Amino acid sequence: MPEPRRFALLLEYDGTRYAGSQLQATSPTVQSVLEESLQRATGEASRIAFAGRTDAGVHALGQVASFVNATRLDPETLMRALNAHLPGDVAVRCATYVPDDFDPRRQAVRRLYRYVIANTPSRPALQRERAWHVAALLDVSAMEEAAQGVLGVHDFKAFASALEDPGASTVRELMAFDVIRDGSSVTCELTANAFLPHQVRRMVGALTDVGRGKLTPAQYVALLEGAASSSGVTAPPHGLYLVRVEYVEPIFKGIE
Amino acid sequence: MPEPRRFALLLEYDGTRYAGSQLQATSPTVQSVLEESLQRATGEASRIAFAGRTDAGVHALGQVASFVNATRLDPETLMRALNAHLPGDVAVRCATYVPDDFDPRRQAVRRLYRYVIANTPSRPALQRERAWHVAALLDVSAMEEAAQGVLGVHDFKAFASALEDPGASTVRELMAFDVIRDGSSVTCELTANAFLPHQVRRMVGALTDVGRGKLTPAQYVALLEGAASSSGVTAPPHGLYLVRVEYVEPIFKGIE
Repeated sequence: MPEPRRFALLLEYDGTRYAGSQLQATSPTVQSVLEESLQRATGEASRIAFAGRTDAGVHALGQVASFVNATRLDPETLMRALNAHLPGDVAVRCATYVPDDFDPRRQAVRRLYRYVIANTPSRPALQRERAWHVAALLDVSAMEEAAQGVLGVHDFKAFASALEDPGASTVRELMAFDVIRDGSSVTCELTANAFLPHQVRRMVGALTDVGRGKLTPAQYVALLEGAASSSGVTAPPHGLYLVRVEYVEPIFKGIE
Repeated sequence: MPEPRRFALLLEYDGTRYAGSQLQATSPTVQSVLEESLQRATGEASRIAFAGRTDAGVHALGQVASFVNATRLDPETLMRALNAHLPGDVAVRCATYVPDDFDPRRQAVRRLYRYVIANTPSRPALQRERAWHVAALLDVSAMEEAAQGVLGVHDFKAFASALEDPGASTVRELMAFDVIRDGSSVTCELTANAFLPHQVRRMVGALTDVGRGKLTPAQYVALLEGAASSSGVTAPPHGLYLVRVEYVEPIFKGIE
């Protein structure tokens, strides 16, 4: 039996039919199908840890998962075996060995999320589980101005849902917040050292108030201080994608 | 009861769970769900005609449908009512009155189809029903050269599957055939006055032989004359999108 080694996986998934990334007692999750496939591929049960928790319906292009396993399969072969066992809506894009002390969540230094809005008068069909349908024509330049105003180190508590640990810091550094229109598609891309629960969906929800003219860019920035109030809409999960998780040393060479 | 009038609809659909566009005895099709929704919305049964037939699994961003109905609903209200009754994977983007003699298929002068290839080493998850996965890195400039070589008026019989009417002409005019790489996505866009059955999927299938280096651009062009042979692969339906159907007079003002 080989020595157990620690692996990391780069994962893509369609979150539509999963109750989020984390294991749950009764519903299928990304973790449950991944742990089952890993057991089938290696004959050994492993507990999998993720870089970021994603809610039910949220998608990923670059989630990072890690586990310890004594399989004889090298990472490339393990990736192929997992892709053969996994359902079609979860795929391994890359697999590699990592140091024994690798922690995909604690050691991550930056996360990039994308939020896609289908800004069309009537509802979309192809993007119905991939984008949030907003019928009102959004003013993207006002949204861009608002987004630029919240860059930097701030207490983002006003945009967070209830915290697991109410004593933990809610200060985060938002490094990028870009709003791009491409035809009828409006994409928001946010990079931070870390995000609070629901932070991206709440920031995008309030940003559409700016896009609709219900909130000025200055009022959006004032939401941070609790000095203004938005309609409080949380953008739905199905427009959200975890795009990339970054570490001091890149893990998946040639992919990122 | 108002006089019956002829309507046209601009349709988007995700073809994944349909046995194609046309009515079938036992399987749900785009026509069957549309006719059912139209009957629910108007209380009147109407037979629907499409601009183009799409196979099982093929998607549409701009299919055109037409029917006669004596509903009191104006086109905008009918669109909203249909979108309320239709399943989420079919949507009406626009509705309008058209002349009584409008025939969406016979009067169409140009069709634009898009074919999307996910050119990634391992299989995609999010695009699994929206793109054809080709793992070998495709040479897009060779594909572009081959595509330019088949533009114009040709007999495309070599790229057609069995015809319904074996005596009908197989000469068509291919007006555009663009191949575009955007990261790991390779998109082929074809415009013609009309296409033969399976023509787009066969032309794209053989074009990937060029992209893999199995066929030169000159050999691709020679396929038209039956003077070369490809691997004969037909690209699968789930990468194909009917994007637009054009008429001498635009039908859906402000949309196209």
